Amino acid sequence: MSERNGLISIVGATGVVGQELISILTDRGVTPDRLRLFASARSAGKQADVAGTPVEIRETEVGAVGEAGLVYLAASSGVARDIGPVLAERGCFVVDNSSAFRMDPATALVVPEVNAESVAGVRDSGRGLVANPNCSTIIMLVAVDPLRRRWGCERIVASTYQAVSGAGAAAMAELESQTRAVLQGEEPRPEVLSEPCAFNVFSHDSDMDPETGRNVEEQKMIDETRKIWGDPEVMVDATCIRVPVLRAHSESIRVTLKEPASLDEIRAELESKAWLRVMDDRAGNRFPTPRAASGQDVTLVGRIRPDAAQESEPDGRSRHWHLFVSGDQIRKGAALNAVQIGELLTR
Amino acid sequence: MSERNGLISIVGATGVVGQELISILTDRGVTPDRLRLFASARSAGKQADVAGTPVEIRETEVGAVGEAGLVYLAASSGVARDIGPVLAERGCFVVDNSSAFRMDPATALVVPEVNAESVAGVRDSGRGLVANPNCSTIIMLVAVDPLRRRWGCERIVASTYQAVSGAGAAAMAELESQTRAVLQGEEPRPEVLSEPCAFNVFSHDSDMDPETGRNVEEQKMIDETRKIWGDPEVMVDATCIRVPVLRAHSESIRVTLKEPASLDEIRAELESKAWLRVMDDRAGNRFPTPRAASGQDVTLVGRIRPDAAQESEPDGRSRHWHLFVSGDQIRKGAALNAVQIGELLTR
Repeated sequence: MSERNGLISIVGATGVVGQELISILTDRGVTPDRLRLFASARSAGKQADVAGTPVEIRETEVGAVGEAGLVYLAASSGVARDIGPVLAERGCFVVDNSSAFRMDPATALVVPEVNAESVAGVRDSGRGLVANPNCSTIIMLVAVDPLRRRWGCERIVASTYQAVSGAGAAAMAELESQTRAVLQGEEPRPEVLSEPCAFNVFSHDSDMDPETGRNVEEQKMIDETRKIWGDPEVMVDATCIRVPVLRAHSESIRVTLKEPASLDEIRAELESKAWLRVMDDRAGNRFPTPRAASGQDVTLVGRIRPDAAQESEPDGRSRHWHLFVSGDQIRKGAALNAVQIGELLTR
Repeated sequence: MSERNGLISIVGATGVVGQELISILTDRGVTPDRLRLFASARSAGKQADVAGTPVEIRETEVGAVGEAGLVYLAASSGVARDIGPVLAERGCFVVDNSSAFRMDPATALVVPEVNAESVAGVRDSGRGLVANPNCSTIIMLVAVDPLRRRWGCERIVASTYQAVSGAGAAAMAELESQTRAVLQGEEPRPEVLSEPCAFNVFSHDSDMDPETGRNVEEQKMIDETRKIWGDPEVMVDATCIRVPVLRAHSESIRVTLKEPASLDEIRAELESKAWLRVMDDRAGNRFPTPRAASGQDVTLVGRIRPDAAQESEPDGRSRHWHLFVSGDQIRKGAALNAVQIGELLTR
């Protein structure tokens, strides 16, 4: 099989990311007859609405999935480990949204705006698996990478404001239903998330390494940044926090460049990138918000200013900068980035 | 007049902080007959419930307010400028919650756990005004000050997760009503806050200096920290963000100490302070949340770990630490801190 048959399989088609993949692909001209949709046995037999056409959802089975030349895995790491390498072996291009292969040295981990060249090996061999990074990593890197390319990047320290969509559709439903309950004076009952999410913020619910005190989400931002940049020296740390927002992540980012830059240079560099929208209206007090970022393909960047906790150069240039970014976790943080990788592979 | 008559006036008694002042004072044994409550003409004539006893709310008038030896101002900066100095001149102890006098070099700015000694001048002269710091500053400093005392503090960089209560009762009502509206599929209509607050986060709605790119809230955290610590050299910066939380602020804090410390030492230092509760359960993934901090006098501290974006010493000690804190904005961030200052003055 190969992409040349024009078919595209989506595994995990009923999930938040799977649904967004369908929406983005059809927006980009993929017709319903080219899509093969798969999910767990529980959803098999249901119909998905694909641009107005009902398409049957089938139980995930490697033979049927592999009839397509291009496969998007929007399922668990377990499913990805089970079927990802088999599909690649059979001649598919596989784009995996899970964390299963991200840190595998033999697997490319790609943000197309940052390291598109990393797909070359898979593309040229006509088969293979490419990993889609973690959402928080993607949203951070699309904003910081233009600065790294021009001035070099020594260090990033981020604090995140993450939507519950990262935990899936059930977590989004929990935020809505729990918020209704709290407004009616009831006690919140967390089931999907580890803490009450209505009118609350809490440390990211991924497992924590008791030695380092970092949770898995934070470790991903460190490890994936180094891999995507091919820079094992860059220093990264993050504090990952969930907020009661449905589908876009925000991040307060402090970046230390290798060479000093001016505000005008930084802003111009960010404004020159089609995938970013600079929202930095100091007079009007308008900056990126997850509400403004939701449903957008662009990542919003603002609050651009030198760090007041570091001396600037005598000419006002600085190596230490703050940014505040908001990006749609489901689109650029997951499905859109995966589609872009698929397009790089099959172009 | 003096505190020795035992009377206490509260100006702004109908606001969020005024109501909390009444609650804290009565909890601490102040009987309703000792309280004189004042507000704007609009609220004059209404009754407040003070521990079950109705107390009349009168229109703010300096003569009547000044019949008490101790005055809490929980009103605007304008009201504070109008009547604060006059009341002090007449012999009152005045604790002002507004920003009017915080940076006045002649006025003490006090967090009792940090710089209680600064009230000495006012206390010993038997009259005068003391300023209550900004909520975000208080919550940051009660957590960081124990580390500064032992190892010195070179730099703090914070990102905040601030409740809407800092913008008053109307903002809290707006968060509730706007959330109800959004859950019913309606468009949010911001009136009190500058951006939609339901299921959204946004840059703090205080005015921004177009030159520095910092808003007033962020500048307060810088300036007030230096004044409270009496350390014009300490480097501070903050990114202040509002989140859809009702009444407790959280802060992701990165602190650079002057001397390296170990995790055990830092944790022991924080655990030794009665005003902090260390919530740092790595195995159970339980850390400070605004929900857990709401209604508490203690500030919660957790996510204690060295910054992975800085080299640690060979023995694992570090000068660079992360903390995540949550504190009740209305209590320790405002009313409780003011009551503690009042107690220092009249003890």
